[in-house]
Amino acid sequence: MEGLFSRCVYLCKMLEDKNQSRTSLAELGEFGLINHITKHFKVSHKTTVKAVGDDAAVLESSEKQTLITTDLLIEGVHFDLSYMPLKHLGYKAVVVNLSDVFAMNGVAEQITVSIAVSNRFPLEAIEELYAGIQLACETYTIDLIGGDTTSSTKGILISVTAVGKASKEEIVYRNGAKETDLIVVSGDLGAAYLGLQVLEREKQVFKVNPKNQPDLDNYTYLIERQLKPEARKDISTLLKEMDVQPTAMIDISDGLSSEIMHICSQSEVGCKIYEDKIPLDPQVISACEEFDLDSTMVALSGGEDYELLFTVPIADFEKVKGNPHLSIIGHITDKVAGLNLVTRAGQELELKAQGWNALTNKE
Amino acid sequence: MEGLFSRCVYLCKMLEDKNQSRTSLAELGEFGLINHITKHFKVSHKTTVKAVGDDAAVLESSEKQTLITTDLLIEGVHFDLSYMPLKHLGYKAVVVNLSDVFAMNGVAEQITVSIAVSNRFPLEAIEELYAGIQLACETYTIDLIGGDTTSSTKGILISVTAVGKASKEEIVYRNGAKETDLIVVSGDLGAAYLGLQVLEREKQVFKVNPKNQPDLDNYTYLIERQLKPEARKDISTLLKEMDVQPTAMIDISDGLSSEIMHICSQSEVGCKIYEDKIPLDPQVISACEEFDLDSTMVALSGGEDYELLFTVPIADFEKVKGNPHLSIIGHITDKVAGLNLVTRAGQELELKAQGWNALTNKE
Repeated sequence: MEGLFSRCVYLCKMLEDKNQSRTSLAELGEFGLINHITKHFKVSHKTTVKAVGDDAAVLESSEKQTLITTDLLIEGVHFDLSYMPLKHLGYKAVVVNLSDVFAMNGVAEQITVSIAVSNRFPLEAIEELYAGIQLACETYTIDLIGGDTTSSTKGILISVTAVGKASKEEIVYRNGAKETDLIVVSGDLGAAYLGLQVLEREKQVFKVNPKNQPDLDNYTYLIERQLKPEARKDISTLLKEMDVQPTAMIDISDGLSSEIMHICSQSEVGCKIYEDKIPLDPQVISACEEFDLDSTMVALSGGEDYELLFTVPIADFEKVKGNPHLSIIGHITDKVAGLNLVTRAGQELELKAQGWNALTNKE
Repeated sequence: MEGLFSRCVYLCKMLEDKNQSRTSLAELGEFGLINHITKHFKVSHKTTVKAVGDDAAVLESSEKQTLITTDLLIEGVHFDLSYMPLKHLGYKAVVVNLSDVFAMNGVAEQITVSIAVSNRFPLEAIEELYAGIQLACETYTIDLIGGDTTSSTKGILISVTAVGKASKEEIVYRNGAKETDLIVVSGDLGAAYLGLQVLEREKQVFKVNPKNQPDLDNYTYLIERQLKPEARKDISTLLKEMDVQPTAMIDISDGLSSEIMHICSQSEVGCKIYEDKIPLDPQVISACEEFDLDSTMVALSGGEDYELLFTVPIADFEKVKGNPHLSIIGHITDKVAGLNLVTRAGQELELKAQGWNALTNKE
């Protein structure tokens, strides 16, 4: 991660610099581009019968059920290329989709990737983007099986669809939480949101003084969580090893508060979350002090953590407690009791969703 | 189709008119919007275990193989809302994806739909778009199983992924064409491209004189092919009834020339196409005269016909010939012979792809 910010700045400069080596996309054509960027991708799964190159991809028949999920990332809405290197963007676009497959307790196997790019981007930029997509595919053993490549009138956008598998018995929906179930979260929360705050601040500093070399040593974890998030592929395996089958599960993309509301609403239950149980990294705590933010609010509403939030029967308490990857943050209650946060002071507050709303942008 | 153009104009006016009833998308929020637009969709397939509403959709296990294809449509690149009503856009966005499933000789069953819209669009516009998506789903018996909904910084875009099924034996790839195979095309070609020319011309007329009522009676077929194309779901059934299994197949989205090149390149063969065998609708012929365009060029390079192009063994000649849905337009040759068009005058010309290049847009 060292030199990450200066690397972003370098990259963006490169993209703007008309004197650098730039291969125009129009020159290459759509099929030339597809061939060029997909030739380095290898197929790992036997289930991938046909990947890129025909009207549709073909996947082998299976005794398991198929999971399908899709996410759209748009420049100026979901990311800012002035601090998001294209390679990281490609990586993140894949990871956020895999996270949804893992949130069903499934195994992710394939993705399609569609991109639209304006002529502001040379081939070299698209290569960077696909290097990130390829790295994610290698890291998570995913086959790229298709997509679409076109021009945009403004900026860049990526639409990824992920395909996974799970047996009927393995799949965990959002609607199975029962009263007295424990509420568990993997990893820690709030870091990705604070990483974004740090990057936004450095962008403003850079605008005023482009020669300023930012010192980001105190924020490495936060920035990494924002620019290169990982999806919790390991949790499904961990739960199997522990012999725990969650009753409900969701990934945390919009913030803990919004996600627990989805589980409670679909399961028709209430919940009680304990503020002092919410897992926070020390960098989150210190950055919250610096930015004068409430760390609980950041964890509840920050989003983009891509951790898993799930419920397990109370009988599994002994299996789950003390696991370094998992935190028990509360329990499911009767629906009538509502959704509540018990503060450190013992006060009960009603939980409200203040997750990031993707529909507030102005044209 | 009557009154279609004036309806487009009305719609666009409505979208611009600040005094009309407009429900802001930001007001509704992402989850509110998703609930609002998906509540009218019904699930038809037993294979759809879980549609919209969880981290991923769940499809039942199957003895058949799964087909997956995706396409991205972007305002200002793939469509112009000044003559493309949003309902038609929604319909077309689904159809172009189904066409790819049918081009594999498969049965399409599910779609995901992701949209990004700027705040220029009120809820009423999104409802129109989804009315078209729903109509396509009903017409083709497709389940909407997921998607993503977000804001854009400019215009509207739709990313659709279609999922289909076919047995291993049924699936037709692009790479199976053999020397002496007949080259067959469904329906007729060139109309969608000419429809676009007519609409572009009327747009210019409208700019100069908004009160002018265009007379589009001579172009109804052309305009319908452009604004409301259908995918050839029937061809797979027809071929089964005729007991014909194509050796290679592709759908015509970029123009006959580009598609035959894909088949020949992947099958490592050449071809001979006869100009006088290319099926043209009478409206195509008369519009070509009016626009001073060569009808063969329009059929070869126009694109967006969404007909199917396929090859069948020469032994199937008797089964295919004379079928009103199919035209035999040539045959597969040795690779060395190259790709050739035999003109009406008997001259042989090398076929060149001049399909629409989606990568030439300027920011």
